[in-house]
Amino acid sequence: MNQENTSKATIVAYQGERGAFSEAAAKKLLGANLESIPYRSFEEMFAAVVSGAADCSITPIENSLAGSVIKNYDLLEEHDLTIIGETNLKIVHNLIAAPEVALEDVRRVYSHPVALAQCEKFFRAHTQIEAISAHDTAGSVRLVLENQRKDEAAIAGAIAAEVYHANILVEGIEDNPQNFTRFYLLTTHERADSIPTINTSEQRKTSIIFRIANRPAALFRAMAAFALRDINLTKLESRPIEGRPWEYTFYLDLIGDRSELHVERALAHLSEMTESIRVLGSYWSSE
Amino acid sequence: MNQENTSKATIVAYQGERGAFSEAAAKKLLGANLESIPYRSFEEMFAAVVSGAADCSITPIENSLAGSVIKNYDLLEEHDLTIIGETNLKIVHNLIAAPEVALEDVRRVYSHPVALAQCEKFFRAHTQIEAISAHDTAGSVRLVLENQRKDEAAIAGAIAAEVYHANILVEGIEDNPQNFTRFYLLTTHERADSIPTINTSEQRKTSIIFRIANRPAALFRAMAAFALRDINLTKLESRPIEGRPWEYTFYLDLIGDRSELHVERALAHLSEMTESIRVLGSYWSSE
Repeated sequence: MNQENTSKATIVAYQGERGAFSEAAAKKLLGANLESIPYRSFEEMFAAVVSGAADCSITPIENSLAGSVIKNYDLLEEHDLTIIGETNLKIVHNLIAAPEVALEDVRRVYSHPVALAQCEKFFRAHTQIEAISAHDTAGSVRLVLENQRKDEAAIAGAIAAEVYHANILVEGIEDNPQNFTRFYLLTTHERADSIPTINTSEQRKTSIIFRIANRPAALFRAMAAFALRDINLTKLESRPIEGRPWEYTFYLDLIGDRSELHVERALAHLSEMTESIRVLGSYWSSE
Repeated sequence: MNQENTSKATIVAYQGERGAFSEAAAKKLLGANLESIPYRSFEEMFAAVVSGAADCSITPIENSLAGSVIKNYDLLEEHDLTIIGETNLKIVHNLIAAPEVALEDVRRVYSHPVALAQCEKFFRAHTQIEAISAHDTAGSVRLVLENQRKDEAAIAGAIAAEVYHANILVEGIEDNPQNFTRFYLLTTHERADSIPTINTSEQRKTSIIFRIANRPAALFRAMAAFALRDINLTKLESRPIEGRPWEYTFYLDLIGDRSELHVERALAHLSEMTESIRVLGSYWSSE
């Protein structure tokens, strides 16, 4: 305990406003001894890690309903950072208002359009309430609290209610409870070993990025390097290569550590057929 | 020629405003004998084909710089339509203004944020001009012409200048000339054979959508059905399955017609290992 109190807090960059889901994900991976800094854009968040303004960044990469966060796949390729952790955060949407406001009083609800769309059943059941698009989930809670309106609420994660001292009127109003966002914890190669993460998993994963020549069965051959060694792939994503229409950069997540012999051999095999290949990191994957 | 004049025009739905790139793509696939109807959203465009308000829709599916139009992949899965044509349209951005306006007069330029971002070099070379985000490329031309402002212009395709009787001040101001958008022509199964398309290609393609059980090497095995028969795949896309986190629906484009024996056999082989499989269509792929 003493050690925790005296050790330096990890500074983590995230995109969004105070009380964002990213902050909850950062706590899962780094514990309470962290200082989080909000950035307006993912570009600024990546830049903060490169410059050293932050020790690391918490980076949403995929949502189980909406799909990949392609902006962050592109930024992963553009920056020479490394993945040192991964977590899945269950996305629970709550109706949040000022402490004195009751559900019957609410006439307008603000949130990010994706969050509003994920709570359709709630709005169908409460036709007196109007849904209004806003820039950010947590930012909507801040605005509703700042404006001191008695007939307004916001939809956001529980952490936003905590941060803005607001009240959760209704918990879990999302239509589909199978709503998870996967986050990477990113840092520079130099700092990779100095950031203390909390591991709740026995499973190591490795992420790579590669380009292959555009010829028949090229991707099939690339995947054979893993299939022939019984290495399980958990995600394959592709993004266009600028200036080379209909050619792609591939992103691949696999089960195993890069230092395990079968993974090392598979990566060597893959590199025989790639134009370029980069290991983005081997890391613990926490649920 | 007589036949063309008297035959009924094909009614094609598209998303956007008059003068959109989609209209240019529709002309490439259907010729001049078409009537195009703009819709505000891709959902409304799909619904127009289902209801019969339009004969077909021209549907952007991928841009060589920005990547897949994931909204339309999801709508392809939700609707039982079929692909009857494909074309690649070169995206050329032009500076467009009212006829009496000269480049030196222009102080503000409106366009869709993606188009503005693709013309960065132009704005760096003309620092007196401010870039302003708007909802639509062609819609920006309409607004600039309607407002009769002498110091404003818009960025859009040549077809928008034609539609709004505007003047192209500078042609081809995009940073990267390798900018193409791929469009599908979609219709109902019933109407598939009644829509006359222009074919400028010798190449047939087939698109399919499938789900496979989430087990090791499942995607690799699926791709083997094609690799083992020397069938070339041109695109693989994945989208999340709602309610089944980290499981995916796959979309695949291949060279060949579904009626060719080796394609037919590959699809039969694939169906041995899929949960579900649907052929979205076999069609001529025009450049």
